Amino acid sequence: MPIINHQTVQMAHGAGGKLSAELIEKFILPRFANEALNRLEDQATLALPAGKVAFSTDTFVVSPIFFPGGDIGDLAINGTVNDLAMSGATPLYLSVGFVLEEGFSLEAFHRVLISMENAAKNAGVRVVTGDTKVVGKNSCDKIFINTSGIGVIAAGVSISCKNLVPGDKILISGSLAEHGMAVMTKREGLSFQSEILSDTAPLCKMVEKMLAATPEIHAMRDPTRGGLATTLNEFAKSSQVGIKIYEEKVPVRDDVRGACEMLGIDPLYVANEGKLVAAVPAEKADAVLAAMRADKFGEAACIVGEVTSSHTGMVVMQTRLGANRIVDMPLGEQLPRIC
Amino acid sequence: MPIINHQTVQMAHGAGGKLSAELIEKFILPRFANEALNRLEDQATLALPAGKVAFSTDTFVVSPIFFPGGDIGDLAINGTVNDLAMSGATPLYLSVGFVLEEGFSLEAFHRVLISMENAAKNAGVRVVTGDTKVVGKNSCDKIFINTSGIGVIAAGVSISCKNLVPGDKILISGSLAEHGMAVMTKREGLSFQSEILSDTAPLCKMVEKMLAATPEIHAMRDPTRGGLATTLNEFAKSSQVGIKIYEEKVPVRDDVRGACEMLGIDPLYVANEGKLVAAVPAEKADAVLAAMRADKFGEAACIVGEVTSSHTGMVVMQTRLGANRIVDMPLGEQLPRIC
Repeated sequence: MPIINHQTVQMAHGAGGKLSAELIEKFILPRFANEALNRLEDQATLALPAGKVAFSTDTFVVSPIFFPGGDIGDLAINGTVNDLAMSGATPLYLSVGFVLEEGFSLEAFHRVLISMENAAKNAGVRVVTGDTKVVGKNSCDKIFINTSGIGVIAAGVSISCKNLVPGDKILISGSLAEHGMAVMTKREGLSFQSEILSDTAPLCKMVEKMLAATPEIHAMRDPTRGGLATTLNEFAKSSQVGIKIYEEKVPVRDDVRGACEMLGIDPLYVANEGKLVAAVPAEKADAVLAAMRADKFGEAACIVGEVTSSHTGMVVMQTRLGANRIVDMPLGEQLPRIC
Repeated sequence: MPIINHQTVQMAHGAGGKLSAELIEKFILPRFANEALNRLEDQATLALPAGKVAFSTDTFVVSPIFFPGGDIGDLAINGTVNDLAMSGATPLYLSVGFVLEEGFSLEAFHRVLISMENAAKNAGVRVVTGDTKVVGKNSCDKIFINTSGIGVIAAGVSISCKNLVPGDKILISGSLAEHGMAVMTKREGLSFQSEILSDTAPLCKMVEKMLAATPEIHAMRDPTRGGLATTLNEFAKSSQVGIKIYEEKVPVRDDVRGACEMLGIDPLYVANEGKLVAAVPAEKADAVLAAMRADKFGEAACIVGEVTSSHTGMVVMQTRLGANRIVDMPLGEQLPRIC
């Protein structure tokens, strides 16, 4: 940790004076140093290549902030990187807004920053502008992080939850529910034979490979809050189509399934932070699947179902026993503060 | 207020399920409706005109959230609009990220949203993407709002805190310390003969007029946290020049000065939310001043000092009595959670 005059966050670290400057210059800048950020203006000035631009924002309030497989730092970088990538964009630039609680450990903050630094490098994005606020004890819980981002979308790419058509195949990039269960088991102090790790990961390089296989990806989304069930319901509702999936094809690791069963939670509703769901024309499905599997975050990708012209606006799952059940939109979520 | 099934924010309003959808569709979307936002993707897809782009972020944690002259809603819109405008950019698109406390009044949230709607209209910007998180009681204080924004910078404009040169005139767009004192008097329950109102305002149209007068604006910033003193110190340090200002020329309204004196606060260090400071070549100063005064938020604009080659990196103020005193960077700030 850089040498600094305090062990914990002080109100003055957010007040715009000398202590703010010390926190920014000793703690934050060294992690993200780049030409745009180093200028320390109140805004970054960027040159963007021509084309459509994607713009996204997300605030991360996960509790606990450190969990098996990740922390609030890499989650905040990967989350916005993935939201950009889901439009087919190449993520380029991020902003970071911190809200820190007075008394929060600067050593913990340093660990979060290192994690953000590594995540930004892995995703190939640059943090170009930021803001830090401090609030008093019990006015926030340790640290909240907003990331917003800009990416560039190549010509010919048009991905939207409104674009699904009957016959499309539904692909997912790997096994479900790991992020949510990792946070949940940590929060509840549960332990299982094998530790469940969050799947937090940047998906932009997998998306690049998929688009190289075909620009004809109809819809794509990362099933975070609300899990696969929510994403598929949003797809079905937005495109006014039905979606059918097959329970036996939906990949869930045995230890994750066991933890879900123990806690009475359906893995279809649990947040993922390194998975994507895509709808692609049937004749392109194998090529897209191969592209996904060629990426290290998509090795377990598979086809889990298809888009139908029946049961419009609804998601139906054929169970292992051959029955069909409706996979509804959840009312709330079983797991608060999961991201 | 739209009809909705709850009076206060529930944990499930942030969980990505049906209640989240209700909050977004009934509460938030109607305020900002536009083509990009209505698509309800996890990111907005935008077409930007060619040119350099400005990108900025700010999180607002002001307490209390309603204060004389404004609230956290218009503050959050105007704050990022102004950070963009200070680079000479025309602000175009904003993202909005809410963190809401469980139990926060939905009626109060609705008032904040209406205020954001009006502020966005006044500034000519569109809210194109957003995110809402809910945390438990005492894990945040009512509502925090992050806004991030994108603006386009015209060719030939190059504004930076590194660009000041000796001889430049220092201009400010109006009287100081009103936002900070409005929040402070509300928070402390003080009352004065005349109510002090926050100066929160969008400055983008004034900047347009200034750039029409001359593209040669060297530096520009809105003196928010840390006030005019901090902004000028940042200018002096970044450009390695001295700055001299004249106490008798720095405009502070009598009631604001009185409130500052009563509370032992120096108005030079108090936050403004609708003022800008600019450094311009001496021969352009009158034209820029006239442009500022032609805008409704710059009617009281004036020249308060100049850039010097002496006392490099420092700001000096000549007092009414003719003495010179150093205007240092504040260590912290007298007023926490001012924005």
